[in-house]
Amino acid sequence: MTSWLPSLITATPEEGYDLAVKLSRVAIKMTQPDAAVRDRLRPEYAEDAKSLIAVSQVIATHFATISAANHYWRDPS
Amino acid sequence: MTSWLPSLITATPEEGYDLAVKLSRVAIKMTQPDAAVRDRLRPEYAEDAKSLIAVSQVIATHFATISAANHYWRDPS
Amino acid sequence: MTSWLPSLITATPEEGYDLAVKLSRVAIKMTQPDAAVRDRLRPEYAEDAKSLIAVSQVIATHFATISAANHYWRDPS
Amino acid sequence: MTSWLPSLITATPEEGYDLAVKLSRVAIKMTQPDAAVRDRLRPEYAEDAKSLIAVSQVIATHFATISAANHYWRDPS
Amino acid sequence: MTSWLPSLITATPEEGYDLAVKLSRVAIKMTQPDAAVRDRLRPEYAEDAKSLIAVSQVIATHFATISAANHYWRDPS
Amino acid sequence: MTSWLPSLITATPEEGYDLAVKLSRVAIKMTQPDAAVRDRLRPEYAEDAKSLIAVSQVIATHFATISAANHYWRDPS
Repeated sequence: MTSWLPSLITATPEEGYDLAVKLSRVAIKMTQPDAAVRDRLRPEYAEDAKSLIAVSQVIATHFATISAANHYWRDPS
Repeated sequence: MTSWLPSLITATPEEGYDLAVKLSRVAIKMTQPDAAVRDRLRPEYAEDAKSLIAVSQVIATHFATISAANHYWRDPS
Repeated sequence: MTSWLPSLITATPEEGYDLAVKLSRVAIKMTQPDAAVRDRLRPEYAEDAKSLIAVSQVIATHFATISAANHYWRDPS
Repeated sequence: MTSWLPSLITATPEEGYDLAVKLSRVAIKMTQPDAAVRDRLRPEYAEDAKSLIAVSQVIATHFATISAANHYWRDPS
Repeated sequence: MTSWLPSLITATPEEGYDLAVKLSRVAIKMTQPDAAVRDRLRPEYAEDAKSLIAVSQVIATHFATISAANHYWRDPS
Repeated sequence: MTSWLPSLITATPEEGYDLAVKLSRVAIKMTQPDAAVRDRLRPEYAEDAKSLIAVSQVIATHFATISAANHYWRDPS
C-alpha cells in the first residue's frame, strides 16, 4: 500500500509548502472522515476570512516542520 | 501496565502523523474524562469548520514535536 | 519548601505528557487564583468543544518543551 | 517555470520579513483560489482588529522559520 | 536604571515559569499602557474560561523560550 | 535608505522584547496600510481583553525568534 506521507523531504521550498498544505488538510479528514460533511463545511471556511487565516496558521506550523526537515533547502542540489 | 505512549519514535512519517492525532485526542480526554460528555460534544466540533481547523492546529503542533524526535525520518531504515 | 516544578525531566513520554497537562493548569491558577471562581468556570470549558481544543493546544505547546528537555526519550533507560 | 518560492534565504532581516508576509498570503490563495471571493473578504479582515492580529500571528510563525533558515542573519555579509 | 528583564536565566524551572508569567503580562501593559483600562478589563478575562486558556497559551510560548535559554535546567546546580 | 529591521541582535533581553513588540506592530501595518483605519481600530483591540491577549501571543512568538537569534543573551557582554 502506498503511504500518503512517504517522506518530509522535498526537492524545493515550493514543494515543501505544497506538502504543508496537504498535511493541514489530512488532519481535517482524520477528524471528520465523512466526505459529505466536509463538502458541506467547505464554503463555511473558504468564504470566511477568520477561518482562512486559521487554516494558514496550521499551514505555517507544518511548513516550519518541513523546512527544518529539509535543512531549509540551504544547499541547492 | 501498558503505557498509552511508550515512545515518540515511529517507523515512518505517516505513523508519526497518526501518533500526533492520538496525542491531540488524549488531551481532550484528560480535561473531560466523562465519555458521555465527550460523545455529546463530538458533533459540535466534527461538524464545525472552525473547530476542525483548531483541532488540526493541535495536531500540527504535536507533529512538529514527533518529527523532531524522529530526526524527521531523514534516513530511511 | 517543595517546588511544584522541580524538573522538566521525566522517566517516560507518558509522564512527560502528564507534566504538560499540569503546566497548562498552573497557568490558569496563576491568572485566576480564586479557587471558587475557577470551580465556577470549569463546566464552561470542560463542556465546551472549542475550549477543550484550546486547552489541548496549550498542552501540546508544553509537551513540545518537555519533549525537547528529555531529548525525546530517544534512549530508553 | 519560475517558482514563487525559490529559496528561504534572504539578504537581510527586512527581506525575510517581507517573505514571511508573502508566505502568509499564499496560504489564503491556496485555500480560496477564487480571486473574486478573496477581494470580497479583504475588508472583512483588513478592517477587523482580531483578524489583523491573527494575520500577524501567521506572519510571526513564518518569520520564525525564515529567521532560522538564515541563521538569524547573525553575520552581516 | 534597573531593567525589568535583566536575564532569561533562572535557577530553577519554577522560577522560569514565574518569569514566563511575567513576560506575558508585560505585553499587555505595552499594548495598553493605561492602568485604569487594564483594571477594568481584568475581570473580563480572569473570569472568562476562554480568556484564561488564551493567557495560558501565551505563558506556554514564553516558557518554551525560557526553558531553551536555560538548557531545560538539565544539570541541577 | 534606512531599514526598519537592520538586525535581530540586541544588547539585552529587554531590548529584544521591545523589538518583538515592534515586529508584531509592523505586521498590522503591512496588512492594513491605511493609518486612518488603524487608528479607528486601535480602541477596538486596546480595550478588549481577548485582543490584548492575542497581541501578546504574537509578541511571544517574535520574542522566541529574537531570543534564539541572540543565543538567549546567555553570555553578558
